[in-house]
This record gives sequence, C-alpha cells and structure tokens, in this order.
Amino acid sequence: MHLFIGNKNYSSWSLRAWYLMSKFNIPFEETQLVLDTPGFYNELKKTFAVQKVPALIDGDLQVWDSLAICEYINDAYLSGAAWPKYITQRAKARALSAEMHSGFMALRSEMPMNIRATRKVDLSSEALKDIARIDEIFAQQQDVFPNEWFFGDFSIADAMYVPIVLRLKTYQITLSPEAQQYCDFVMRCPVLQAWITQALTETDIVECDEAGTPV
Amino acid sequence: MHLFIGNKNYSSWSLRAWYLMSKFNIPFEETQLVLDTPGFYNELKKTFAVQKVPALIDGDLQVWDSLAICEYINDAYLSGAAWPKYITQRAKARALSAEMHSGFMALRSEMPMNIRATRKVDLSSEALKDIARIDEIFAQQQDVFPNEWFFGDFSIADAMYVPIVLRLKTYQITLSPEAQQYCDFVMRCPVLQAWITQALTETDIVECDEAGTPV
Repeated sequence: MHLFIGNKNYSSWSLRAWYLMSKFNIPFEETQLVLDTPGFYNELKKTFAVQKVPALIDGDLQVWDSLAICEYINDAYLSGAAWPKYITQRAKARALSAEMHSGFMALRSEMPMNIRATRKVDLSSEALKDIARIDEIFAQQQDVFPNEWFFGDFSIADAMYVPIVLRLKTYQITLSPEAQQYCDFVMRCPVLQAWITQALTETDIVECDEAGTPV
Repeated sequence: MHLFIGNKNYSSWSLRAWYLMSKFNIPFEETQLVLDTPGFYNELKKTFAVQKVPALIDGDLQVWDSLAICEYINDAYLSGAAWPKYITQRAKARALSAEMHSGFMALRSEMPMNIRATRKVDLSSEALKDIARIDEIFAQQQDVFPNEWFFGDFSIADAMYVPIVLRLKTYQITLSPEAQQYCDFVMRCPVLQAWITQALTETDIVECDEAGTPV
C-alpha cells in the first residue's frame, strides 16, 4: 500500500489520512511530493484522475480524498474499528467528520497549517465563528470523555480535526479550558509528534500557506 | 424519523439526503424551511448545533450533513446496501462521493441548482474544468454500467451527483454522449421526478441562487 502526501509542514489533508493509518499501525509506504510544483502534478497524473493529496494506491485500486481513504482503511483493514462502536456515536462522529470535510472554509483559508511557524493573524468574523464552533465541539466531547479522544477510543473524527489543533497552536488562539484540554491531549500523541518532527526538518516554502505575522 | 430540508427548487444538499432515503423507501417525515430566512435559522437552532440542511432527527439522535446522513441511513437501516457490494467499488464510490462533498466549488457557485429555470451562463475556466471532470466521471461509469447507476445498483454516490444532473440541464451544458446517457437515465427516475414536480410548485425566490440569463 502506497500513500502520496504533500509537505508535512503544510499539508493538513495529507496528515489526516497518514495519521489514521499510522495510529492503527497499518503498514504503508509513503511518497512525499512538494505542493504546488510541476513535479507534484506530473507524479499524481501518472495514476490518479484527481491531482490532490492524500492519494492511496492499494494493489490495482486508487483511492483519493482524505475521508474516502479513512473509510476505505476502516472498511478493508480495520473491520470498522476506526469509527465508534455504538451507532449513535458513529453517526455523530461521521457528522463531525463531514462538517470538517466540507466546512470551516474561513478558518482553513485564513489559518493555513504551518507547523514550524508561530504567527499572529487578523481573523474575519467568519473565521472567528469557525473557531467558536471548534471550541464548542472540543469542549462538548471533553465533557463526555475528558482527556480522551472525541469518543473515548481514537476514531476517524479525531484524525479529521488533528490539523486544526496544530493551526490553533501556530496562530496562538485562546480556547476555553475544556477545548484546550483536548488540544493538549492530542499534542501528547507520539504518532503526531513523529509527523511534527519530520515537518520541522522541511525547508520548502509554499507562499500561499504563509499567512499572518511572525511572532 | 424527521428530515429538515430547504426549498426543493434550490437546495441541492437537501435533495441528496432526501433522494437516498426516498429511493430506499425509508419512512420519514419532512419539514421544509425556506433557505436564507430568519425562520430557517430559528427552527434549526431549536435542535441542531449547525444551522444547515439537510438535518435529520431520529429519536434522540441528531445527524447533520448530507453525506453523514446518507452514511447513517446506510448503517442503521440498510445494512450497508447503500454502497456497492464489492470493496473496490465501495472505495471508488466513497472517493467520488467525497470528491463531490468537498469539491466542484466553481461549478457549485456559478451554476446553483435552480430546477424551474432554463439559463445561459458564462463560466470561468475553473467551472469548465469541473464540468470536464463531471463528464469524465459520468462517461467512465457508463462505460462499465451503461444505462445504469454508477455501480449498477443505486448507491450513495449517485445521490451525491443527482443535483449536478439537474444543474447541467438548467444551464444547458453539452456533454459527451456517454455522460449525457447517465443524465438521461437519472432523469427517468420516478423518485427524482417526484422531487422535481414538488419543486415546480414553489414560488419563493432565493436571490443568490438566481444565476445566469433566462433563455
């Protein structure tokens, strides 16, 4: 199995799939491509109809999109263990994952993932609304499962939100204590720390992801 | 079970969930809210953290987001029958669904669903790229399953693309013969025709969804 990802410093969608697979100890090889370069598109074009990362090859099968890759891994390798066991929790986990997958546009555009940076940024009212919603989600789940993943055990929903935790840190966003507790819990994860360590060795600059003022 | 939807003329995300549930004969009540009105937000606020449609209530459970609702129905009521039976087809169906769920932004903003209208519209190069990709998807699946749903039997992937078929019609977009064959097949579906019939009785105007020049 082969996962194509972008720069570890910047590629938040790559992180979601990589993190899910790594957390569940799924063996895979990775190919890293530098975002926004001709090499990136040329390499993906060889195999994929859509030239975006993450992208997965498993034998003859190509799977694109972070959420679809997570669902495929869950389906093919984990017998469903990447979603909560109870159907109502599973429904909520999928709703939270879908909300991230298609939403939080202002936050995503104004606070691009940039792991090595510490920045100050002026946010629009839309981005502030996105942050308030993130705070609400994190705090609500911590209320049920304090110092745990969203639904106790790690699930795809956590993988979907992990890049948000990193963005909140880069742009020094103040959260409620309960929401911050989830962030602190996530940051202690050794698998995430391994990604961060690798991100910090990277030197490529992707201009469009360099937002805010250095602190 | 109770599904909240928007205007049938305009609300493409509502159609996706409504269509999936209706095609599989899942019994549900529906409440229709007029998009972009105070009543819309006030009604959803009573129950949902996110004030968007579609939104589902099933007993004590709230599920928001079209894809999450489809996955929940598949999980809770259909024993998995809303995705293809074979794992590789299921992976592709999920990738196509996720691609629609988070993508095709130019097409979605320049060609809003507007069932009762027939329009001419000037499209950006991004929207034209989106249409080319739609054509590729429709034609590829018709190549494998001519005059059938994407994967032979109806699946969530078809539900995700059905509003696109309606937009292509409204804005009179010319497709390849194979892609058009899928559109014609979809348009013959009585469940879709029932939605269209109801949409045509509506008189509310949502200004931001009135794009293009009447033909």
